[in-house]
Amino acid sequence: MSQDSPVTSRATDYSQWYLDVISAAGLADYSPVKGAMVIRPHGYAMWEHMRDDLDRRFKDTGHVNAYFPLFIPVSFLSKEAEHVEGFAKECAVVTHHRLRAAEGGGVEPDPASKLEEPLVVRPTSETIIWHMYGQWIQSYRDLPILINQWANVVRWEMKTRLFLRTSEFLWQEGHTAHATSAEAVEETKKMLGVYADFAKDMLALPVVPGVKSASERFAGALETFCIEAMMQNGWALQAGTSHFLGQNFAKAFDVTFQTQEGTREHVWATSWGVSTRLIGAVIMAHSDDTGLVLPPTIAPVQVVVTPIWKSDAEKVDVLAFCAQVVATLKPHGIRVKLDDRDMKPGAKYYEWERKGVPLRLEVGPRDVKQGSVFAASRTGGKKESMALEGLAATVRAKLDTIQADLYARALAHHEARTFRPESYAAMKDALDGGGFFLVPWHDDAVAEAKIKEETRATIRCYPIDGQAEAAGRTCFYSGRPATHMAIFARAY
Amino acid sequence: MSQDSPVTSRATDYSQWYLDVISAAGLADYSPVKGAMVIRPHGYAMWEHMRDDLDRRFKDTGHVNAYFPLFIPVSFLSKEAEHVEGFAKECAVVTHHRLRAAEGGGVEPDPASKLEEPLVVRPTSETIIWHMYGQWIQSYRDLPILINQWANVVRWEMKTRLFLRTSEFLWQEGHTAHATSAEAVEETKKMLGVYADFAKDMLALPVVPGVKSASERFAGALETFCIEAMMQNGWALQAGTSHFLGQNFAKAFDVTFQTQEGTREHVWATSWGVSTRLIGAVIMAHSDDTGLVLPPTIAPVQVVVTPIWKSDAEKVDVLAFCAQVVATLKPHGIRVKLDDRDMKPGAKYYEWERKGVPLRLEVGPRDVKQGSVFAASRTGGKKESMALEGLAATVRAKLDTIQADLYARALAHHEARTFRPESYAAMKDALDGGGFFLVPWHDDAVAEAKIKEETRATIRCYPIDGQAEAAGRTCFYSGRPATHMAIFARAY
Repeated sequence: MSQDSPVTSRATDYSQWYLDVISAAGLADYSPVKGAMVIRPHGYAMWEHMRDDLDRRFKDTGHVNAYFPLFIPVSFLSKEAEHVEGFAKECAVVTHHRLRAAEGGGVEPDPASKLEEPLVVRPTSETIIWHMYGQWIQSYRDLPILINQWANVVRWEMKTRLFLRTSEFLWQEGHTAHATSAEAVEETKKMLGVYADFAKDMLALPVVPGVKSASERFAGALETFCIEAMMQNGWALQAGTSHFLGQNFAKAFDVTFQTQEGTREHVWATSWGVSTRLIGAVIMAHSDDTGLVLPPTIAPVQVVVTPIWKSDAEKVDVLAFCAQVVATLKPHGIRVKLDDRDMKPGAKYYEWERKGVPLRLEVGPRDVKQGSVFAASRTGGKKESMALEGLAATVRAKLDTIQADLYARALAHHEARTFRPESYAAMKDALDGGGFFLVPWHDDAVAEAKIKEETRATIRCYPIDGQAEAAGRTCFYSGRPATHMAIFARAY
Repeated sequence: MSQDSPVTSRATDYSQWYLDVISAAGLADYSPVKGAMVIRPHGYAMWEHMRDDLDRRFKDTGHVNAYFPLFIPVSFLSKEAEHVEGFAKECAVVTHHRLRAAEGGGVEPDPASKLEEPLVVRPTSETIIWHMYGQWIQSYRDLPILINQWANVVRWEMKTRLFLRTSEFLWQEGHTAHATSAEAVEETKKMLGVYADFAKDMLALPVVPGVKSASERFAGALETFCIEAMMQNGWALQAGTSHFLGQNFAKAFDVTFQTQEGTREHVWATSWGVSTRLIGAVIMAHSDDTGLVLPPTIAPVQVVVTPIWKSDAEKVDVLAFCAQVVATLKPHGIRVKLDDRDMKPGAKYYEWERKGVPLRLEVGPRDVKQGSVFAASRTGGKKESMALEGLAATVRAKLDTIQADLYARALAHHEARTFRPESYAAMKDALDGGGFFLVPWHDDAVAEAKIKEETRATIRCYPIDGQAEAAGRTCFYSGRPATHMAIFARAY
């Protein structure tokens, strides 16, 4: 679709709608490298707001940032048995360090530059980081280590989808080292809480915090915690994970510490991450058939001011007033943009709506006379007049309302489409309509795989809240005693 | 060296001193991947302060951030003839996208996953970005494009040195597209100015803005501008570059636009960047034989508060007072840390001095009684008592003084060691002592190469200020009429 084409409606084709929203807002493009995307400025600015807020939350909880190498020797991957199973399969492998002129033009890898040991472009950094931790950790005094890294990672994906699944993506990965199991488990849960709060406060996204079943666990983890969000079509999207790694990586890389009592023990580990797929989550949770809808917290432009004039005399007055509006809002940290391009107001409205700007302030000659602006919310409702006097507070309140409304709307949707099917058959019947299916479940990887095969639904998580409900109930699938309450859903 | 060993003195071994300072401050480590470093939290925090400040300067001058893929198809490199010469030589080449179990254990690249076209890990992103610009630019209305990217890049280096030359490093690369040559040249110079201001304000680093000779130009540029800084041993360090690329990349990737007059023309380009090597520049410009010295602007910790007590009763009072000190400074944006570890004050002082903390506030029982702290500057001078009342302002003023002193000291050194040798022989005699050698020069690549071979000195730049001085003078090397004033120096 071209940047001016209308967006396909959700009802017509949900998948195409998603791509159209991205294109119409100018968020990302596919690149000439298979499965790798270009994050365009409007999309990247969303990421910057997410990143800055998360970074602050990480620092407030005692974490610091560092940077580890992009390349990992292949032998490192093999050191943790499950990890290599999970990550060695599809990854980018560097085998040469030089190009040479090719016969017939162009360049090619120089055979003389073949590496003794190939390098993998990091799909995740546990192995290289635990190698380094082995050098840094000697005693209990060196613990805990609470390090986070903002980085790009590569996982060679065959079937890609902008933001949701691309061969390269941006993320943060926290990697912490602790003296005790209890402390590591506490860290794992704490960071899950940070993610859940972030999703609610910044993305206006209600999420279910839970635990993954064994088959959905991170390769090398003892326990994977996650937050699961519901998209408008009722599909699930894993929005963040936090892993309790036990002593697996400490053992693989032989990282021990001297305890206060003088004994030597292996270190306990966690890792946790969120990625640019959150941008996809926000798009799919809030946008509509016109295009992108953004929570004000992460909107690159929160307020656009659009002047309207006919005569040159009007133009002078209107633009002067618009400048006043901008000067009023900016010092209050409101991200405001004046669109004074010489084009029809309707075309401007269309463009900014598709870019998801939460609030538009129209300024015509009549508004100037009244000393006010005419405000239109991206989320709808009646347009309203706002006085220039006290405008910053009025606008701030309006943005807060939009933010709260988006969350309330998403939460209502989430609740309305969380079902408690009486039976497996009932879930199968309802699955095409989307939604989360909360059921009593007897933990069983074989049955889980069978259900996935039959329905394309997977266990998204065992929600942390509400597990008590499983007591005394029978599994909706096998009839055996329930071990958990589980959420099944189709997922991105 | 271990983290507790003393730092080698500059006089004894300048190169070892540099590595010792890094190690003693815990800034970076070598990694198991050849030539790739790990930036440790204290070093990374310095980078964060640099990055945030630069990012603000870029945004204030109208730039936005975006993100382009890590991988570049090898054929792209070949499209710009000079560019491929400069960058195809030593780079990481991805040839496979999957590993498989190897006979005898471990994993190896799966031959079945060989890529049709190898990918290069970006050494710089002109080619992939100009490919994308080709899709985004149709008309003069799409111009200018003012995009910056924060990213990691890889250049396979044989001889590495922490921060200064590593196979992977972090940087920003600005890539702009313009309708006219004049506008692109203006952008090139503007960004050079941004770098020079940043170096002065944030790094306390005096720099010489200049133009590179043809042989030192960026591969693919018509003109390369740079800022050159002088290290304490008198060697030069290129601290940032800004390139006017003309229409080279637009032609290589066939990027044209429709002008206002309806004709089609190739787009004009610039690119500009600074990297984590700036951390190396800061270390070498300001540190001393004790260890790291940091300008307060980029110091991860600006003020450390060190309590001193003997009895438990004293400890309670002293720690309560220290908490007040921290609570007084923090709200003013001063990065303050309380070191209440149970160890000898002297050992703490030593540790924080080596970490480059600009100001230490000692608090003992007597200070508590007097309602004051005892302040020691990392840069020396008499310790002074500072009252708790008004402490934030006193500390801020002190930090500003330290910052100004560092710049003044570096500038004095820079000026004292900028020489105007009468002859080539005089420069050769003086070169081992280090310094910048400002001479009248007749532009000549052959002579330049010969001087480099004989003396290891290169033309750092033709300084922008002072070119008029060349008029009527003769080249210090050839005796021919001078075309430029040139700075020769040995360089990192």
